[in-house]
Amino acid sequence: MAGPGRQSKLEQAGGPADASGVPEMATIIGYKLRRAQLLVFQDFIDSFAELPLRPAEFSVLALIARTPGLKQSDIAARLGIKRANFVSLMDGLERRGLAERRKAAGDKRSHSLHLTEQGNRFVARMVELWQAHEQRLVDSLGGAAERDRLIALLDRIIGAKG
Amino acid sequence: MAGPGRQSKLEQAGGPADASGVPEMATIIGYKLRRAQLLVFQDFIDSFAELPLRPAEFSVLALIARTPGLKQSDIAARLGIKRANFVSLMDGLERRGLAERRKAAGDKRSHSLHLTEQGNRFVARMVELWQAHEQRLVDSLGGAAERDRLIALLDRIIGAKG
Repeated sequence: MAGPGRQSKLEQAGGPADASGVPEMATIIGYKLRRAQLLVFQDFIDSFAELPLRPAEFSVLALIARTPGLKQSDIAARLGIKRANFVSLMDGLERRGLAERRKAAGDKRSHSLHLTEQGNRFVARMVELWQAHEQRLVDSLGGAAERDRLIALLDRIIGAKG
Repeated sequence: MAGPGRQSKLEQAGGPADASGVPEMATIIGYKLRRAQLLVFQDFIDSFAELPLRPAEFSVLALIARTPGLKQSDIAARLGIKRANFVSLMDGLERRGLAERRKAAGDKRSHSLHLTEQGNRFVARMVELWQAHEQRLVDSLGGAAERDRLIALLDRIIGAKG
């Protein structure tokens, strides 16, 4: 089992491995993804301390702002949020007076989602705070071209799996 | 506030934005990181169903296997795991008979971490399963060069923040 063929496959899969094949953490895709994601989310949460806002709430508000009237099932599916989590997230946004469910015309069982007036003002401030956060990230990557390269690579993972 | 200068900064920060500056989710770094990370972790958990093993447990076992005798505080810091979470994770590995804490020589308050015999066998199987998972990821990215490029970009985020 430990012939040269196996070793070269190990090298491809995980970069440098020791004699027993145990990988170096620094070469593992999932490990690096998680470290980067946690740091980006922490910076996001710090950036939105004044509002406050969690990343999933940001995504839902941004999507409703860009496309008012989407059904809640469409938004949940598009963002990859589980139905139960999405319902409680929307409950929170409604309680804060930022977004509302309206009965969809022609289909009484489904709801379309809209921002309130207060939600529109909230989103304007949210976008300003988000810009500063995102610009820090783009700067740390080295520029917009590197941002595009990173997203293209992540899309390969998302496309292959999702 | 809505002059051309602001628009071009928006374009750099978040790619295409609508008139109100609300970003398209597909261009947001943190959003894509999270989608990719969740998919990779799900594939990881599915791959390790027979053992079973969570990503953080994998990391700790791999690090102890490569560097037996490290102190638990060093491992927690190196992997970015909070102390309380690390203690309960190590408790679980000890209960399963895979790893053990030993009093560190010369410092009775700290513990060094080691694999048991059973832990060594477990890690050998873990590495085999991990290889298949990681190879799928590398294939979805397009090859080892793309893997290296992705990790280099993630390291810029981690280095700038962590």
